[in-house]
Amino acid sequence: MSLWVTKFGGSSVGSLERISRVAQRIAEIKNRGDNVVVVVSAMGDTTDELLELAWNISNDLPARELDMLLATGEQQSAALLAMALASINCPAVSLTGWQAGIESDSQYGKALIMNLDTRRINRELAQGKVVIIAGFQGISPDGDITTLGRGGSDTSAVALAASLKADHCIIYTDVDGVYTADPRIVDSARKISSISYEEMLELASLGAVVLQPRAAEFAMLYNVDVEVRSSFNNNPGTLITEVAKMEKQRVVSGIAHDTNVARIALFDVPDQPGVASIIFKILADHCINVDMVIQSAMRDDRNDIAFTIERNEFNKARHVVNEIVIKIGASGMSFSTEVAKVSIVGAGMQSNRGVAAAMFDALARQDINIHMISTSEIKISCIIDEDRIEDAVKALHKAFHLDEGE
Amino acid sequence: MSLWVTKFGGSSVGSLERISRVAQRIAEIKNRGDNVVVVVSAMGDTTDELLELAWNISNDLPARELDMLLATGEQQSAALLAMALASINCPAVSLTGWQAGIESDSQYGKALIMNLDTRRINRELAQGKVVIIAGFQGISPDGDITTLGRGGSDTSAVALAASLKADHCIIYTDVDGVYTADPRIVDSARKISSISYEEMLELASLGAVVLQPRAAEFAMLYNVDVEVRSSFNNNPGTLITEVAKMEKQRVVSGIAHDTNVARIALFDVPDQPGVASIIFKILADHCINVDMVIQSAMRDDRNDIAFTIERNEFNKARHVVNEIVIKIGASGMSFSTEVAKVSIVGAGMQSNRGVAAAMFDALARQDINIHMISTSEIKISCIIDEDRIEDAVKALHKAFHLDEGE
Repeated sequence: MSLWVTKFGGSSVGSLERISRVAQRIAEIKNRGDNVVVVVSAMGDTTDELLELAWNISNDLPARELDMLLATGEQQSAALLAMALASINCPAVSLTGWQAGIESDSQYGKALIMNLDTRRINRELAQGKVVIIAGFQGISPDGDITTLGRGGSDTSAVALAASLKADHCIIYTDVDGVYTADPRIVDSARKISSISYEEMLELASLGAVVLQPRAAEFAMLYNVDVEVRSSFNNNPGTLITEVAKMEKQRVVSGIAHDTNVARIALFDVPDQPGVASIIFKILADHCINVDMVIQSAMRDDRNDIAFTIERNEFNKARHVVNEIVIKIGASGMSFSTEVAKVSIVGAGMQSNRGVAAAMFDALARQDINIHMISTSEIKISCIIDEDRIEDAVKALHKAFHLDEGE
Repeated sequence: MSLWVTKFGGSSVGSLERISRVAQRIAEIKNRGDNVVVVVSAMGDTTDELLELAWNISNDLPARELDMLLATGEQQSAALLAMALASINCPAVSLTGWQAGIESDSQYGKALIMNLDTRRINRELAQGKVVIIAGFQGISPDGDITTLGRGGSDTSAVALAASLKADHCIIYTDVDGVYTADPRIVDSARKISSISYEEMLELASLGAVVLQPRAAEFAMLYNVDVEVRSSFNNNPGTLITEVAKMEKQRVVSGIAHDTNVARIALFDVPDQPGVASIIFKILADHCINVDMVIQSAMRDDRNDIAFTIERNEFNKARHVVNEIVIKIGASGMSFSTEVAKVSIVGAGMQSNRGVAAAMFDALARQDINIHMISTSEIKISCIIDEDRIEDAVKALHKAFHLDEGE
């Protein structure tokens, strides 16, 4: 008897018809004699609708109450799925986050799972029931309902798989798996059969969100093999696992791109200790996430500093940066919202020299100008003009032979 | 410093605008320096919408899962009201049934409150917060979410008022209070300023539902004074209290009527011990509620038995009764869905002879035929033709001088 932990996202349970199809899929596993734990998200747009309702009350909402409100979405879909399973004679029980023993800290809206008390889950499994758990939520030490942040249901599922020592952890979503590039841009993009935690983590944080970054982190931390696959067909998905278990370590596994990018540059920033910290502290205080940062070579005693932020935070950031310019005595600023980020990700990059050069060469051959570069051990990202992003993704996909099969 | 327990029904919190008005009303009490506990129902039609969703899955739903689903409605309105209070700088905290310590038995869908552990509520009150509690729900000994049945929020409020020893218990609803008769029928109907628990209980179970029967029972059991008043204006409402506290004990306090009535008669039922029990056992097994029962004088060794049921259960009942006729060897049945029930209710009736005669006389003067009669210590009900119900209510209202003021 195996134990499966499965997760179904909001679009997979977006209607009663879809919930009924999910129930069929679970009953098939259960009827083979295996145990099943199911983590569900809220139906379709429920969370967004609840958020909109709340924002109509005030734009300064108490985070505790927001979590109290939002957690109802998952509770509803969990109960409905339990009913759908009962209707096809598959005994099931739905549990809220607190009933499932998902103990978190008290950071409402982005709570971290601290401990899993799986006694209730194990008791229900022992009674032969499918256990359906409302994802995205936990309970704080004070007995309050918390939510784990967007995509928190992925994290719930991976944490439960780790804690229950599940044999299988499957994230059912609305795509077939992780691709070498966005199939809408690159015709020859292929589904990747297996990918390392580290690569998934980079891809997830680069905008190719198939598995939430925090869930990928959890999987890496507890060494849980996670398969991402479609809930709408039976195609094999992508296995996210440790590098050692992978058949083949690729130099470059995939090309990610992100157009939700804006670039801001500050001119003639005084070259004094602590200036950079002032700039990024002020941005952080305004909850503006900074991604790439580049400090140019010194000219006399002044620097230029450029950085990228999410484009949807640009209007807010612009005003903040204007203040910063005055505060630190810079000579001015420039910005562009017509840029985008293209990245290559691959675990084999660490042991292969010349990968960066190959990337820059491929872009140069297409006459694509690079504005900024940032690198990690398994990733190289370039900021380029947004109108060249598709050309860049296509060129890199070809240059690293990603269309040639595994 | 007084403690107020207030309850707002579904129509009182039916929109964000109404929730905001409720918040204003609560803040006024709080700002006078008093403590406030608020019990809320789900917004408007939320419960019905969730029920409809569930019934689309199956017509044999697991009761536990239905409670899990329905309880989200009150959790949402509680959280939204807490946000609305925060937005006008009135600190508030929302609690689910289990967070508020509302411990019930395990009868899903109609759970009974067994115990109230008010530690959390008292802790929040001590911190100066308005405590908002999701009504209609509790937690079973197994840690499962239960609901207290339709109108259960009234019961939550009265139970909390009893347990917290509240100074005031106010049920805000969409009517001004309890009337001597339905104001839509009788122009001169007056709002009753105070009424006894027993009278309220009879009126509530006779169809004049202002306070749920179980809440009235709870109020009587724990001797809680409950005021029912409108959430849409500042008019004084009706105080429900013990007879001893009332200024004046009326012979007849009000006229109730109910058109959700159907009458079924069985002819020539064998006069054997146990026959009546067979009939009503079968009806109960099919969840058909029987109200009035009359067994006619014996003719030879056979009886006629007539009873009333809720008209909306008539189609189901008809088939069941056909089977009963065959099973017990009766000669046949008749039925009418064109009947209605009119009742007079008054605590002073017990010590006043001649009240029944006065009722029958008032109906006879209007040429209204009486099909069935049933009496309790403080109530007399008659089944009459439905098309005469308005005439009957008007005539009785006048006959017992209810239009003449208190």
